[in-house]
Amino acid sequence: MIILNSKDLEEVLTPEVSINAIKDAFSFYSSGKIIQPQRQVLTIKGNWWGIMPSYTDFSFVTKIVNVIPSNKERNLPSVQGVVILMSPDTGEPLAIIEGSTLTAIRTASASVLSTELALKRRSIGTLGVIGAGMEARYHLKIALKYFSVSKVLISARKNHYQLAKEFGGEAVELEKLLRESEVIYATTSSDKPVVLGKFLSEDFHVSSIGAHTPNAREIDDETIKKAKTYFVDSIQAVLNETGDFIQPKNLGILPKNVYEIGEIINKGISIERPSIFKTVGIASQDNLTAYVAYNEAIKKGIGIQVFL
Amino acid sequence: MIILNSKDLEEVLTPEVSINAIKDAFSFYSSGKIIQPQRQVLTIKGNWWGIMPSYTDFSFVTKIVNVIPSNKERNLPSVQGVVILMSPDTGEPLAIIEGSTLTAIRTASASVLSTELALKRRSIGTLGVIGAGMEARYHLKIALKYFSVSKVLISARKNHYQLAKEFGGEAVELEKLLRESEVIYATTSSDKPVVLGKFLSEDFHVSSIGAHTPNAREIDDETIKKAKTYFVDSIQAVLNETGDFIQPKNLGILPKNVYEIGEIINKGISIERPSIFKTVGIASQDNLTAYVAYNEAIKKGIGIQVFL
Repeated sequence: MIILNSKDLEEVLTPEVSINAIKDAFSFYSSGKIIQPQRQVLTIKGNWWGIMPSYTDFSFVTKIVNVIPSNKERNLPSVQGVVILMSPDTGEPLAIIEGSTLTAIRTASASVLSTELALKRRSIGTLGVIGAGMEARYHLKIALKYFSVSKVLISARKNHYQLAKEFGGEAVELEKLLRESEVIYATTSSDKPVVLGKFLSEDFHVSSIGAHTPNAREIDDETIKKAKTYFVDSIQAVLNETGDFIQPKNLGILPKNVYEIGEIINKGISIERPSIFKTVGIASQDNLTAYVAYNEAIKKGIGIQVFL
Repeated sequence: MIILNSKDLEEVLTPEVSINAIKDAFSFYSSGKIIQPQRQVLTIKGNWWGIMPSYTDFSFVTKIVNVIPSNKERNLPSVQGVVILMSPDTGEPLAIIEGSTLTAIRTASASVLSTELALKRRSIGTLGVIGAGMEARYHLKIALKYFSVSKVLISARKNHYQLAKEFGGEAVELEKLLRESEVIYATTSSDKPVVLGKFLSEDFHVSSIGAHTPNAREIDDETIKKAKTYFVDSIQAVLNETGDFIQPKNLGILPKNVYEIGEIINKGISIERPSIFKTVGIASQDNLTAYVAYNEAIKKGIGIQVFL
């Protein structure tokens, strides 16, 4: 069994590797090649705990993740997790993997993949990132390695100057970001819309990873009305979990083209822009990313080996 | 975070330590001090997977366990598992623990604790162990350290000569074991009764850990009819999971005294023999045993430290 920490994951999960894994993850999910039971959720003393098992022919993966809001006061990450990979054939534990970095990488890889599918090229004019947390950082890391990007704009309530400096971007007001970006990644914990349709360009692509309750919104109705394609990680998941899908669906303002990204991949559907990709995260992403990380680590001799 | 393998567990979980942990586990369970959601179960290609989370004020524990019947042909254990301990306050992963040994120790500790409660002393005349697998081995290991035992009898379809030699016991036919033993541990994977009431002594104590489906039996109706006390790990669990409780309940032959072991501990109830203890295993046992193993390991500097 090997242990893969955050640093190991950055080494083994290059953008090409992680985006390929995520492509498989979505493809498998939409074609029923993965068993993904309903996740177990506990909320205790204001803390959230989720346990997410999933199964493919080559990987049994369980992610245990928590959200501990009071960790901010302790200077600890508010989201932590562990991912356990076991062999579905022999049942042996193969890897214990740090969960926050794996989650950030698989989430960013989903946004980047959605962008490649929407733009049908490996270059972006202006990329706008809303938010400046761990998710924003990994979106920038992966997008800037995967695409040739002319200009990066970053907008957040705090830390966006620092992040802009780190990634050679420009810290800007939200309105400027929305007006000038071809591709927008919304990575906030806001429950009010930050992607405002009235400012958006003609052929935008938005990937939104926040708004995780039926009442929360990260993208507004105007954005949805402008979009020609609205694609998601899992129809069932977004119908259960995010106001960004539930509310426009109830209002009847979803565009004609609503797809799962796995369906787009499997059927080779061509995305019409303006487009929105909404992802709340599904277990198959953790599964395939963990599996690929393990294989790459074994190949490259990365990670600490331990014996249970 | 530390890694505790099988050898580490044997070092930190002395009988006194593990039996105390199990006593707390049952006490907590019966007084509602532990949150134990329904476990998630998947059966895929003849393999069984279980995911069992549980939560106390000081420990968030998830056990992932599988049963892979075809592992016998591979010379691998057919039951394997991993236990993950996290802090319920900060969410940090604290320990990754080998699951089979932890399970065997906590199960044997439950049988031993039930025996101490039933006998009200730390000595056993003749101890009979039915079965010769991993569970039987750990029952012998722990019972022989915890009790002064005059004589050990072992009966199984195979390997009982070897086990008897290892533990200074005698390999015998089942009937002899049943006739002569004061305390009987049934640790089989049989689904037909092996504890047959017609052979049993006047004031037996039986602990039965097998028979994990509503149709399976490890103890027969005659045994149940002779018992004055029938106590269990969890009324709800045995009602869901074992023919040894469901069937006699339906037949109306359960003795008057039916208790949860936690209730016996919490209220100081005195057990009348002959007595039966039936345990299918509950998450609180894994939780408290993992927590105590972690604490002892930290105290003694045992286990490999890794950084996620």
